[in-house]
Amino acid sequence: MAQKNTTREEDYSKWYNDLVYRADLAQHSDVKGCMVIKPYGFAIWEKIQAQLDKMFKETGHQNAYFPLFVPKSLFEAEEKNAEGFAKECAVVTHYRLKTDPENKSKLIVDPAAKLEEELIVRPTSEAIIWSTYKGWIQSYRDLPLLINQWANVVRWEMRTRLFLRTTEFLWQEGHTAHATKDEAVAEAEQMLDVYTEFAENFMSMPVIRGKKSESERFAGADDTYCIEAMMQDGKALQAGTSHFLGQNFAKAFDVKFADKEGKLEHVWATSWGVSTRLMGALIMTHSDDEGLVLPPKLAPIQVVIVPIYKSAEELEAVSVKAKALMAALKALGISVKYDDDDNRRPGWKFAEYEVKGVPVRIAMGARDLAEGKAEVTRRDTKEKAAVSLEGLEQHVAGLLDDIQQNLFDRAKKFKSENIHKVDTYEEFKQRMEKDGGFYLVHWDGTIETEAKIKAETQATIRCIPLDAAEEEGFCMVTGKPSKHRVVLAKAY
Amino acid sequence: MAQKNTTREEDYSKWYNDLVYRADLAQHSDVKGCMVIKPYGFAIWEKIQAQLDKMFKETGHQNAYFPLFVPKSLFEAEEKNAEGFAKECAVVTHYRLKTDPENKSKLIVDPAAKLEEELIVRPTSEAIIWSTYKGWIQSYRDLPLLINQWANVVRWEMRTRLFLRTTEFLWQEGHTAHATKDEAVAEAEQMLDVYTEFAENFMSMPVIRGKKSESERFAGADDTYCIEAMMQDGKALQAGTSHFLGQNFAKAFDVKFADKEGKLEHVWATSWGVSTRLMGALIMTHSDDEGLVLPPKLAPIQVVIVPIYKSAEELEAVSVKAKALMAALKALGISVKYDDDDNRRPGWKFAEYEVKGVPVRIAMGARDLAEGKAEVTRRDTKEKAAVSLEGLEQHVAGLLDDIQQNLFDRAKKFKSENIHKVDTYEEFKQRMEKDGGFYLVHWDGTIETEAKIKAETQATIRCIPLDAAEEEGFCMVTGKPSKHRVVLAKAY
Repeated sequence: MAQKNTTREEDYSKWYNDLVYRADLAQHSDVKGCMVIKPYGFAIWEKIQAQLDKMFKETGHQNAYFPLFVPKSLFEAEEKNAEGFAKECAVVTHYRLKTDPENKSKLIVDPAAKLEEELIVRPTSEAIIWSTYKGWIQSYRDLPLLINQWANVVRWEMRTRLFLRTTEFLWQEGHTAHATKDEAVAEAEQMLDVYTEFAENFMSMPVIRGKKSESERFAGADDTYCIEAMMQDGKALQAGTSHFLGQNFAKAFDVKFADKEGKLEHVWATSWGVSTRLMGALIMTHSDDEGLVLPPKLAPIQVVIVPIYKSAEELEAVSVKAKALMAALKALGISVKYDDDDNRRPGWKFAEYEVKGVPVRIAMGARDLAEGKAEVTRRDTKEKAAVSLEGLEQHVAGLLDDIQQNLFDRAKKFKSENIHKVDTYEEFKQRMEKDGGFYLVHWDGTIETEAKIKAETQATIRCIPLDAAEEEGFCMVTGKPSKHRVVLAKAY
Repeated sequence: MAQKNTTREEDYSKWYNDLVYRADLAQHSDVKGCMVIKPYGFAIWEKIQAQLDKMFKETGHQNAYFPLFVPKSLFEAEEKNAEGFAKECAVVTHYRLKTDPENKSKLIVDPAAKLEEELIVRPTSEAIIWSTYKGWIQSYRDLPLLINQWANVVRWEMRTRLFLRTTEFLWQEGHTAHATKDEAVAEAEQMLDVYTEFAENFMSMPVIRGKKSESERFAGADDTYCIEAMMQDGKALQAGTSHFLGQNFAKAFDVKFADKEGKLEHVWATSWGVSTRLMGALIMTHSDDEGLVLPPKLAPIQVVIVPIYKSAEELEAVSVKAKALMAALKALGISVKYDDDDNRRPGWKFAEYEVKGVPVRIAMGARDLAEGKAEVTRRDTKEKAAVSLEGLEQHVAGLLDDIQQNLFDRAKKFKSENIHKVDTYEEFKQRMEKDGGFYLVHWDGTIETEAKIKAETQATIRCIPLDAAEEEGFCMVTGKPSKHRVVLAKAY
C-alpha cells in the first residue's frame, strides 16, 4: 500500500508489467521467455476458454488433440509455413539424459540418444494436423471437417512480455477442411464473426475487422482475416486471426477427396486462433492506475461483500444479511465472495479487490443495516451508492450489465477519438509521432511502400477494413491511385 | 460390417487396439509413440476432465499453468526425481532451424542456435513448480497452497500403446504445500479419496486403494498412494497416484516458511495425478466384443434415437414424436442425438452406436407409434424392451442410473472372482500362469524378494491395501514373518 504504483501516464509499459504482478495474474518463470500463469490469471483464462469453447461447439466444431511434436520432414512440407516459423523453433534432438561422469550429481545429454530425425515443438499445428487429415478424408462425405484444439505452442521469441509475447503460450487453433473454396472462405469469415462477438460482447473490447496485407499474412495462408483492438496507449493489438489457407496444405500433404462424381480434388482449408494474448488485450483495454478492471462476464469474482464491524456481535449480524444476499446473488448466476477474513482491515480489502478488478464491491456495516442499506461501489467508475437491501440482488444484476456495457462504450469512444484520417505522409508522420493512435490512409498496395512506412515510422498496416468504403484516392507516400483506406498503427 | 472383429478371447491386446480404432477414439500419429486423440475420444476425456476439475475445486484447489520446459539445472535439483526420469526425457537443445545450404527445400538445425542450457520437456512438473513456489511461500499465512494444472507431459517410452502408454500424454497434476507433515499426508489421502470416488461413481470401475512398495514409489516421494483397477484380462492398471513428498522438494529448492513463532521450517508437499491412461482403463473395464461400453455419466451421447421408416411421411410422423422425446430428455439433463441421416440404414446405425458405446438406443418406427411405444435397448446387457412413449423420458433416466450401477456391480463381481489368496510360491506361480488375476500374498517386505517375484513371474506388488487386515503370516517366498497381505498382479 505504501509503495506508489506507476501510472499509465508515467510509463505505460511499466504500468502494465506492474499491474500483471500486482493483480496476481502471471509472472516470469525460470525458463527464459516463458511465464507462469497464476491462479487468478488462470481463472480469467478459464472464463475466456469456456465461452469460446461454447461458441465453437455451437458453430459445429469438435475438439481433438494432436501431438506436441512435429517431425522435421513434415514441418518443412508446406514451404512458406516452414520458412515463416523456422527461425523461432524449439528443437528436440535427444531423448535421454545420463549422469555426468565428471560430476555424479549432474546430468548431461546422452550423446547415444540422438534422434534420427529432429522434432520441432509445435509453433502451430497445420503440418501435423494435415498429415493426419490425409487419413481422415477420402470422400465429400468426410467434409466439412471442423476441428478445434486447445493447446500450448512454442515460438522462440527474443523479446517477450507477459501474456503479449511469450515463448510458450496457450491457445486454441481451429483447423477445418472443405469441399469448395467458397465454403472455406465462409468458414474463415464465420470464425472472424465468432471472435468479433467474443471480443465485443464478452471482453467489452471494440475491434476493427479486416484483412491483412500480403506481407502481414500468416505464413502459408492465401488470406488472413483479423480483429484489431486499440489499447489505451493508442497502439494496436491483433486479438485474433482466421486464415483462408486455400489448397496449400492439401497440396503439401496430398489431401484429396472424391466429389459426388468420383473426381479427385484437393480440399480447401482454414485455420484460426486466439491465445493467452487476449489476457494482455483485456488488461490494457480497461484497467486504470489503481489496478485491473474486468468486464463482469469474464470476472472470476463478480461481486465481493466486505463486512464492516467493530465487535463479534456486529460481525454476526452483518454475516446473516451478507449470507442471505450471497444466496440471492448466486441464485441469479452471479459469482460472489464474502470476505470476512478477520486478519485484514476493510481498507486493505477494498484496495485488494480494486487491484483485482472485481466489478462490484458491497460494504455492509452495522449502521447500514440499521438503515436497511448497503454501500455498493462499481469498479469501472468508482461510483458509490447506498442501496436498499430490499431487492439488492436485482440492483446488482443490473449494475453488472451496466458495467459490461459501459466498458464497451468507453473503449469505443476512446477508439473513435483516436482514429484519424490523414492524406499526406508528412501529416501522418507528425501526428503519429505526436498523438499515436490509428490512421486511415490511402496506400498503393505495394510491399515496397508498406516496408518504407514501417522502416520510417514503425507503423504497420494493421488491416484493410472489411467495411472500408470504396473511395478513390492517392497513396500518401507514392501518389499512386488507391481504392480504399487501410489502418496504420504501431502494434504490440 | 463384413470384417469380423477380433474378440477378447482370441487376442485381448488386438481386441483393445482394434476397438480404439473402430470406436474412433484415437490413433497412432506420425510422431513415434505419440497419439492423436480423435473427437469422440476427446469428448469422453472432456467429460472426465470436467468432473475431476469440479471435484478438485470443491476440495479447495485452484488451477494454474507452469512452463512446458524445465532447465536442466532445475531438473537435476531433486536427485531421486531426476534419476527416475532422466532416461526418458525429450531434450530441447536448439532454438532455430535454417535452410539446408545443400538443398534449399530442406531445413536443418542451426548449429549457431544452440542453447547454453538444455531444456527438458516436462515429464512431470515438481521441479519447475517448486522453483516457483520458493517465491510464493514466506509465511504460514501462505499455506496451504493448493494448486492443480492440466497439461501435456512427455516421457520417452520405447513400447507404447494407445492411451495406456504414450510418449506424450495429457494429465492433471496437483502440487500442494503444507505447514505440517500431518496436513500433507491428509491431503495425499484426500486426493486418493477423490480419485476413488471418481473411479467408482463416474467410471463405474471398482478399485483397490493402497500404498506402493518402496521400489514402485514415485521418484522423489516418501509415500505413493494409488488406486489399482482390474482389467478384463485379469491384469492390473494403476489408475491414479497421490504422493506424499515429505520435505524432499522443499529442501531441494530451499522452500521455507516462517511459522507463527517466526521460526523457519521447510514446507511439506504432495503431488497427485491422473492421465489419459484413464481412457484405457475405462475401455478395458467395460467394453465387449461388439465395441465400447460407456458408463452413462461419461458418455458424450447418452441416448440415441433412430427412426425406422419406409416413406417421407413415416419419417415425418416419427420425427415429431422423436423431437418431443428429445426435448423431454434434454430437460432432464440427458444428452441425446437424433440420427435421421437418410444415407444410412437403421442396421448400420445400430452397429455404429453399439461400437461407440452409447448407453441407450431408442428405435422409433411407424408401427411402434401406432401402439404408443418405442423399442429401447440398453448397451450393457443388450436387453430390448417395448416401452410406452408416455413417460418414456423418466424410464430412460432410470435406465441410465441402472446401467451406471450395473457396470459397477459387474466389474466388482469380476474383480472379486479374480482375487485369490495363496500361501505358497508354487501355488502362486501355477495359478498366475493358468488363471491370471490378482493375488493376496504374504511378503517379507524386502526389495530382494519383490525383485525375485518380478523376474520369475512378471508380477509386481501393485500395492499394500489400505484396508489390509492385520494378519500374522509368512512370506510365500522366504518364509520370513509378514503382518499383512499385499496385492500381486501383472500390470499394464
